[in-house]
Amino acid sequence: MKNGILSQINSPAAIKKCSKNELLALTKELREFIIDVVSTKEGHLGASLGVVELTVALHHVFNTPKDQLIWDVGHQAYGHKILTGRRANFHTNRKLNGISGFPKRGESEYDAFGVGHSSTSISAALGMAIAAQLDGDFERQHIAVIGDASIAAGMAFEGLNHAGVTDANLLVILNDNAIGIDPSVGALKNYLTKAKVGFKPKQNNIIEALNFNYKGPIDGHDLPALIEALNELKQQKGPRFLHVITKKGKGLQKAEEDQVTYHAPGKFDKTTGEIISKTDENLPPKFQDVFGLTLVELAEQNLKIIGITPAMPTGSSLKYMMQKFPNRAFDVGIAEQHAVTFAAGLATQNYIVFCAIYSTFLQRAMDQVIHDVALQNLPVIFCIDRAGLVGNDGATHHGVFDIALLKSIPNIMIAAPSNEIELRNLLFTVSKGVNQPIAIRYPRGRGNIIDWQQDFKAIPLGKFQQLKKGTQIAVVSLGTLSVEVEKAIEMLDEKDKPKIAHFDVRFVKPFQNEFFVMLFSKFSCMITLEDGSIKGGFGEDVSAFAQQKNYPGKVINLGIPDEFIEHGSPEELYDLVGLSAAKIANVLEENL
Amino acid sequence: MKNGILSQINSPAAIKKCSKNELLALTKELREFIIDVVSTKEGHLGASLGVVELTVALHHVFNTPKDQLIWDVGHQAYGHKILTGRRANFHTNRKLNGISGFPKRGESEYDAFGVGHSSTSISAALGMAIAAQLDGDFERQHIAVIGDASIAAGMAFEGLNHAGVTDANLLVILNDNAIGIDPSVGALKNYLTKAKVGFKPKQNNIIEALNFNYKGPIDGHDLPALIEALNELKQQKGPRFLHVITKKGKGLQKAEEDQVTYHAPGKFDKTTGEIISKTDENLPPKFQDVFGLTLVELAEQNLKIIGITPAMPTGSSLKYMMQKFPNRAFDVGIAEQHAVTFAAGLATQNYIVFCAIYSTFLQRAMDQVIHDVALQNLPVIFCIDRAGLVGNDGATHHGVFDIALLKSIPNIMIAAPSNEIELRNLLFTVSKGVNQPIAIRYPRGRGNIIDWQQDFKAIPLGKFQQLKKGTQIAVVSLGTLSVEVEKAIEMLDEKDKPKIAHFDVRFVKPFQNEFFVMLFSKFSCMITLEDGSIKGGFGEDVSAFAQQKNYPGKVINLGIPDEFIEHGSPEELYDLVGLSAAKIANVLEENL
Repeated sequence: MKNGILSQINSPAAIKKCSKNELLALTKELREFIIDVVSTKEGHLGASLGVVELTVALHHVFNTPKDQLIWDVGHQAYGHKILTGRRANFHTNRKLNGISGFPKRGESEYDAFGVGHSSTSISAALGMAIAAQLDGDFERQHIAVIGDASIAAGMAFEGLNHAGVTDANLLVILNDNAIGIDPSVGALKNYLTKAKVGFKPKQNNIIEALNFNYKGPIDGHDLPALIEALNELKQQKGPRFLHVITKKGKGLQKAEEDQVTYHAPGKFDKTTGEIISKTDENLPPKFQDVFGLTLVELAEQNLKIIGITPAMPTGSSLKYMMQKFPNRAFDVGIAEQHAVTFAAGLATQNYIVFCAIYSTFLQRAMDQVIHDVALQNLPVIFCIDRAGLVGNDGATHHGVFDIALLKSIPNIMIAAPSNEIELRNLLFTVSKGVNQPIAIRYPRGRGNIIDWQQDFKAIPLGKFQQLKKGTQIAVVSLGTLSVEVEKAIEMLDEKDKPKIAHFDVRFVKPFQNEFFVMLFSKFSCMITLEDGSIKGGFGEDVSAFAQQKNYPGKVINLGIPDEFIEHGSPEELYDLVGLSAAKIANVLEENL
Repeated sequence: MKNGILSQINSPAAIKKCSKNELLALTKELREFIIDVVSTKEGHLGASLGVVELTVALHHVFNTPKDQLIWDVGHQAYGHKILTGRRANFHTNRKLNGISGFPKRGESEYDAFGVGHSSTSISAALGMAIAAQLDGDFERQHIAVIGDASIAAGMAFEGLNHAGVTDANLLVILNDNAIGIDPSVGALKNYLTKAKVGFKPKQNNIIEALNFNYKGPIDGHDLPALIEALNELKQQKGPRFLHVITKKGKGLQKAEEDQVTYHAPGKFDKTTGEIISKTDENLPPKFQDVFGLTLVELAEQNLKIIGITPAMPTGSSLKYMMQKFPNRAFDVGIAEQHAVTFAAGLATQNYIVFCAIYSTFLQRAMDQVIHDVALQNLPVIFCIDRAGLVGNDGATHHGVFDIALLKSIPNIMIAAPSNEIELRNLLFTVSKGVNQPIAIRYPRGRGNIIDWQQDFKAIPLGKFQQLKKGTQIAVVSLGTLSVEVEKAIEMLDEKDKPKIAHFDVRFVKPFQNEFFVMLFSKFSCMITLEDGSIKGGFGEDVSAFAQQKNYPGKVINLGIPDEFIEHGSPEELYDLVGLSAAKIANVLEENL
């Protein structure tokens, strides 16, 4: 492959000069290159394989980087990255100090807009297109490539609705493969599915009703057809829409057959596609599975229990309940706003609603949490997955703002279980009914307890627990950071260990006044730890309360600093922000 | 009217028994009653006048409160309130301790879901409909009444998209009057406008494409036609859709002719409709006008300036720029998410984008602020109108969470000008270009400075200003609360006045470390004031910082307590939460 055409492509300028045969060769090599690297370095696979031809066609037809090309979500942009000067660095994808797994403005002039969350591309591209119009630039093209799962989100509709009344130079390309991370859902998807290559949905064309010039559907793996269509659309004016049908995982048989697993398969054999299995046996469970499997157990006992996920049945493990109780478990698509208010509607009818949303995506539904749930004090149970630093997905996906965002909302209780059993027992406890909304946050990845499926035990709502006695410093940790604190204490000199008391705060809100007054009276130093933003976080509450109570001691707040944290392994990132056991031990030593 | 039919209707049960003639008489009296009360007590007029026939028809046909009726936004629910046991209290509408201007679950069993923000009704009704299905209740009906401006918001699309793949017993009624608070915009609106009474949009029926059973359009002022259509739809199963065409302000000629003004006209002559004019002359300006008019001045000088509003051209006063520079000022409809990312797209192309959003509605776009603006450090200027307690609109509309929500987001600067001239000068300052996103928050209503249109002066970004010298207590106020502090100081004994120093913090973020260190060294007591949530607010930052710096003095944080604040006049509400001049003076006296 060293002597193939891919190795000669150092920028899209070279692609523009390629013959059709060279372009076909390029797609083949690009697909092999992606498979080659991702099979050992890991990352998102299926989405990028599905748009290899589209990627090559776009850079062949359009004048990037002057033309503005926006990849919605960005899972599918590996080919784009490789063709735009990042081939040699592609092995650093998603690694600390390596290139980002998503398009990112700071990384390349070919990344017109940073992405990660879905459904932003139409709005951003429209902004750029309006800017070109105002600049009197009628040449520059603006292209949003968006999947069929992403276009069903409300935000994308808002963008289409606005674009349709402008004459902006905007091309929306629907990459229709009938799947997001999990299979797409919803009425729009059913509607789109009726369209087949060559058969335009003549009746009820939603896109034309919104005043777009619609073209398609065409086969997204037919490179000459793509080039022809793009060249044609390039000549047109105003908002236009190309419907392209692709297959996620195209070119790797196993990835085509099991599109959910091969969205991000981990390491695999690049020839057979066989996943190089990490033996899951004897590993502690993922927190998402503690949620998903426990919910099934609870739902078996209580017919009033409902589960909701916005487009993450696999990621949240709600899939288990969806399989067992399909009438009571809902994947509503990429629709966090709807998910929360739909949950509120169910809660008014005395259903016990578990609404599972990743921390980073809950940002999409803050108004619904405030206006539809908290204001009416409806007892929706928010299961906030991927709280804290998520690792290789990086800045767009870290779950570090949820505490700060939720803390100021009246009526809501905020909890962070410290391990798998605590999460399980907390889910059990709230399944008995609560009188207010509650947010339960837990991290991405695995815990530490293999034998986690123990008998249920109720957890006293709103109360801390003491994990270790001590005499001098009170460490108050949030959630699973307790494990790092325990390791940090183990690193200390034997003589110092008895000086450290360790508390698991368990509940951020309501604020536990009496508990902290007790700590102020007993300890000369307090250290708070949270896997969320310090600014607006729980430690800030403690410091402010200490000030109100004239606490003469020292309060140290550890957490995520006031900056966006990039990608890397969770271990690397937690060390970077000072929340690894070693860094915590340093702080303890400095204050003994 | 005392002996009319309205006075005999104490609950919808009575409406169900009415003959057609009695119903017609009821609509006439209901319309007169609304006009009668609102003409003297003020409130939202046009929307409720437009649905008088629909309101009567719904309560006649459906079995409320068992059937669940949700009024989207709720501006239009006055008739509903009057017919459901609140006629005698209707004169207390929007007043302190009176009934709410919006449907509210705590107020009546007929208010199935609390509303205020738009586009929530479909999601909530779907939740209730799914609950009925699970309960095995196939009789109960679920009705969402939503306007054509609200249905264009992304959240409504998400609800439709989900509902369309269920067989839930859901009726969505589109109240299509081509106007929200301002005229509706967008491609969907243009599409809907093609539909006329009796002429169903056969081609491209978006609603049918989403798998709803579509009926209409019918004349929403034709009571027999409405009753017939509702009776027919009641017998059907699954998601269905009734398209009703109404006229906002129906029955009061002036309200029909000037629908924007008569959305909430204040006091007016109930016979002529003539507005009882408050002489605007010699009144200080509304803050929204300081924004809107200053922006026009700035946009005249700088072709790069853009203005954006999501559906509030009148309320935000962006209408002035829309009139003068229609190419550079955009009403994007009820689409806060799109508004923010559209702004981000423009900002990438070096436009200076002023994105004006009410504080309460910015809650709809937190993810876009974080993910599309702050993460990319794009210099979008957020003009956050209606910050603080807004008064009679109440709990759904208060702008008390924006500081807490924005504070934890890296890169963003947060400012609160203390008066009209400060706002004007800050807009001028940032129009010269900033290197980061900035949020400028200002309240609803008028300021105090009549002669505000003075020559522009730059404001040093990120720096406090001292308003009064003093020796003992440092009062640090945010934004326009400085006026109340000044009044409070005036209330003190002459001997005490010199003891109070007063600072206007001006910028909440970045936190001004040096300034506060200086205060800690000079004053034995500090009082912070903010018209936002104390929990997560700016005062909490000050307290936490004081603790870090071992400040031995006292820090008192005044602001909005951790509960939802109801409706009332701003004066009443600010007194209630302890932020009136008199209450502030009390705190000062207690700490002297």
